[in-house]
Amino acid sequence: MKKAVVLFSGGQDSMVTLYQALADGFEVTALIINYGQKHARELDCAKLIVKASPITKYMFLHTGMITSLVTSSLTQGAHTSRSDGLPDTFVPGRNIIMLSLAGALAYEIGAGNIYIGVNQQDYSGYPDCRASFISAMQFALTVGLDKSIVIWAPLQFLSKKEIVLKAVDLNCFEMFKHTHTCYKGDHPPCGTCASCLLRAKGFKEANLEDPLLAD
Amino acid sequence: MKKAVVLFSGGQDSMVTLYQALADGFEVTALIINYGQKHARELDCAKLIVKASPITKYMFLHTGMITSLVTSSLTQGAHTSRSDGLPDTFVPGRNIIMLSLAGALAYEIGAGNIYIGVNQQDYSGYPDCRASFISAMQFALTVGLDKSIVIWAPLQFLSKKEIVLKAVDLNCFEMFKHTHTCYKGDHPPCGTCASCLLRAKGFKEANLEDPLLAD
Repeated sequence: MKKAVVLFSGGQDSMVTLYQALADGFEVTALIINYGQKHARELDCAKLIVKASPITKYMFLHTGMITSLVTSSLTQGAHTSRSDGLPDTFVPGRNIIMLSLAGALAYEIGAGNIYIGVNQQDYSGYPDCRASFISAMQFALTVGLDKSIVIWAPLQFLSKKEIVLKAVDLNCFEMFKHTHTCYKGDHPPCGTCASCLLRAKGFKEANLEDPLLAD
Repeated sequence: MKKAVVLFSGGQDSMVTLYQALADGFEVTALIINYGQKHARELDCAKLIVKASPITKYMFLHTGMITSLVTSSLTQGAHTSRSDGLPDTFVPGRNIIMLSLAGALAYEIGAGNIYIGVNQQDYSGYPDCRASFISAMQFALTVGLDKSIVIWAPLQFLSKKEIVLKAVDLNCFEMFKHTHTCYKGDHPPCGTCASCLLRAKGFKEANLEDPLLAD
């Protein structure tokens, strides 16, 4: 059985990505990285989902390293505006670092595949969510590890609505109730941050009720 | 003044790389990463060199994350042999992760340049020391950060002898006394590990005495 490492945050996109990797027939190892994000609740969600899923292999990696390297409202408190026009939730290099770590783990366990739930349509200008970056990073990992690494980004060109419908297809729709999206880390979600609004829009367009809000 | 991040380990190669970046006219920020290497003495050496150098900006990043992801004799005790033919001191993905972290820091401080002391001729088969990898990673960082990043590897094609002679040119030869090379982390160096033997060969071929052994 071929192996894949899935970068798993406990958010809705990475939950669907996890089930896509399982549907694709891989033996999945979920890699859950605490990089000091303010919404640590996401990590509790990740644990819940992993335990409720058919996944048996997972790894938690705790590190404050990204927070000490960069400043971003996601990790350091109040939202501020950036002078470079990027959303203030941009953590520079986050996916670069995540994929590097996933590459090291993939090498170690003999996996030739990495899944990541990046999404170009809703990427808000994050350069490390673009297909061009994923392609460049796949090449860097393959050369740097001297091992063929394929990075799968099954949500790359989907809208939030299409991601909701994909979860229906993959029989993981009910798992949305364990996912966390709110940038503020609130539970129940604040309902007003950009992330909550985008989530709500996806369910509305799919004409389905968000299981997270069903209680 | 243009800025550069220098990945700095306290070893002889990164010391010469640091002085090359200064000679190239950059405002240098040294990034010193403790990834759980057995030879923690290298980090003490890094501090000594930074304090003795004209560098005013540096950052220590402590993390055990690489050690928890991968197994390697450099981080986990006794030397063992790998089944893949690579030297047992290979930490898979180490330079990929290091360069990702350097990229995030470069973005944060507005630096468009990263220096790394990799060396192809003596690379012992490490795939992430090859020029092809450095080129691939430079592209991945540039796309992923949406910012031009140049990775300089000034020692890439030099022999250990040429690195010793370059230190003479850069007026940093005496700093070799603060550098650490021994894979076993011994001080004084064991003199018998592959790394000590390679170092000794470089000084012998350059016809110069290693300042580390001069006491």
